[in-house]
Amino acid sequence: MSDEPGRIMAGEMAEQPAVLRRILERGVPEVHAVARAVAARGCRFVLLTGRGTSDNAALYAKYLLEIRLGMPCGLTSMSTTTAYGARPDLTDVLVITVSQSGGSPDLVASTRAAREAGAVTLAVTNNPDSPLAAVSEYHLDVLAGPERALPATKTYTASLLTLYLLVEGLRGGDGAAAHALPDLAERILARRDEVRTLAARYRFAERMVLTSRGYGYPTAREAALKLMETSYVPALAYSGADLLHGPLAMVDNVSPVIAVVTEGRGGEALQPVLDRLRGRGADLFVVGPRAQVEAASAGFVLPVDGVPEELQPILEILPLQQLAYEVTIARGQDPDAPRALAKVTETR
Amino acid sequence: MSDEPGRIMAGEMAEQPAVLRRILERGVPEVHAVARAVAARGCRFVLLTGRGTSDNAALYAKYLLEIRLGMPCGLTSMSTTTAYGARPDLTDVLVITVSQSGGSPDLVASTRAAREAGAVTLAVTNNPDSPLAAVSEYHLDVLAGPERALPATKTYTASLLTLYLLVEGLRGGDGAAAHALPDLAERILARRDEVRTLAARYRFAERMVLTSRGYGYPTAREAALKLMETSYVPALAYSGADLLHGPLAMVDNVSPVIAVVTEGRGGEALQPVLDRLRGRGADLFVVGPRAQVEAASAGFVLPVDGVPEELQPILEILPLQQLAYEVTIARGQDPDAPRALAKVTETR
Repeated sequence: MSDEPGRIMAGEMAEQPAVLRRILERGVPEVHAVARAVAARGCRFVLLTGRGTSDNAALYAKYLLEIRLGMPCGLTSMSTTTAYGARPDLTDVLVITVSQSGGSPDLVASTRAAREAGAVTLAVTNNPDSPLAAVSEYHLDVLAGPERALPATKTYTASLLTLYLLVEGLRGGDGAAAHALPDLAERILARRDEVRTLAARYRFAERMVLTSRGYGYPTAREAALKLMETSYVPALAYSGADLLHGPLAMVDNVSPVIAVVTEGRGGEALQPVLDRLRGRGADLFVVGPRAQVEAASAGFVLPVDGVPEELQPILEILPLQQLAYEVTIARGQDPDAPRALAKVTETR
Repeated sequence: MSDEPGRIMAGEMAEQPAVLRRILERGVPEVHAVARAVAARGCRFVLLTGRGTSDNAALYAKYLLEIRLGMPCGLTSMSTTTAYGARPDLTDVLVITVSQSGGSPDLVASTRAAREAGAVTLAVTNNPDSPLAAVSEYHLDVLAGPERALPATKTYTASLLTLYLLVEGLRGGDGAAAHALPDLAERILARRDEVRTLAARYRFAERMVLTSRGYGYPTAREAALKLMETSYVPALAYSGADLLHGPLAMVDNVSPVIAVVTEGRGGEALQPVLDRLRGRGADLFVVGPRAQVEAASAGFVLPVDGVPEELQPILEILPLQQLAYEVTIARGQDPDAPRALAKVTETR
């Protein structure tokens, strides 16, 4: 795919501060206009849909909507519509569909069905000319520019910021706290050498476990997906609470654990899980505050400079994207050429 | 834990036909009474909560509610309530909490919060004297009898049948199709030698991928959880559509795939995924119809005798529970003594 392994993915990861800046400079008026229009519709329930990376962005939005807006939410099981033809009554339901390409036929079909069933439909994509944007009543462009690498990176953080601004708009806020993100993202991405050194730990790992709680949980899932897509290491993501319910049996000195520790209530709720993992002698890598990294086997100290917890996912995924990239390079593989992955997945 | 490795788990797996019979003989009136009372409340949305095995049972109920009843549903992200204190407006919302023990403090807290927020609350547990049953407005006992093995088996199938009867009750049906299940379950469980032979394939597997679509997807997740809890093999479950979106890169000749193929629309929707896996030369094990098993590397032909697709999950998990058990025995471990697993997990 490229002369230099990983050149395309590396380039798109590096674009992220500029993409975040672009959204804050040019995207905000459109997001606020859509938020006002959607808010006027008085929805009571939100259903979110996405696949792969976009599903993780949808999960992030679910936390925001539940916590910041008090809206009951669900992630759709798409086959109920596309395979079983379910036609639920979606009056007062906002259906948000997240898709980088906006091209998957199943997303277009399920969004069309939702609209016919009475839902207010909103698509969040990186392509305003896509079939998904056309079939949805409202559309938000995440403004990430063309994404060529198969493992999605810049469209993930762009979707997160767009969804954050949407929820802030729905609650009448201006999202000003997000303005600190582009500079912080730049500082984090500049520490590539540090991540390369850390990646050596996982060159021979046969499996990895990722965990978090609250806002950081979508990050754990997205990091696991990136690791699998690029390096093919089986990476299992669990919420901290679920980890204690069974899969903990799998964690031992051959299953390294990566914990995403947000600075805030999610990180606090994860503390008993971190203590338990340390008690078992697990190899624990932390992305989070300095004190947590120092108490772990290794980690990446995430500068957040007072950015509120709900925005930290946009930063904490960055060193984990780089980690997936560097682990893949260390294993002699090409992050730009994952096996078997097509950019628009044609599931129906 | 036991003199003979796996004796407790084996005994509880074997009880399943009797438990299913007990529910059909003694549980139905209570389920119908609760269904009538809940139906009269006119809820418009359903939120489902569970952890581990109970989360997979909740996911099964989500498919039933969406497809059979046309109710928009969501699985809760519990930390939004317990860690972040979110208090959404739950008027017209039915909150179903599934828990074997009914004892997890976080489930009790989130159910209490849901009730205070206006929800109709229903607990489905194996313990009518549990704190969760006490705090919920309605309760259904899954009648599985005391479960002593740490990997839950009989409470899973008992929860599935109870939830099926509940949804049938909510739509005014009598659930008569379920009466074929106990005999079928007996026939399936009698084929233990066949599963033992099949388990040899996985004795040295370093990872496994499970996949399905529609009603079979909760089965794939539950089978992955059983495999991890007992044998510690990293087992990753994906819906067929999600598998094509990235993790497929991980499937190759060292990652065997187990596909749960229901006889019906879910199985049909999985066909392109099965074709793709075969095209990649994946080692494919099928639980499902004879023709699908014969086209795969190996498998277990599931007798369904015309049982409708929505009931097949109660049968298709049985050989997979046994597979987890036999793989664990083959590896010289004890399915009754998984590391680090407590029966009532005290997450908060």
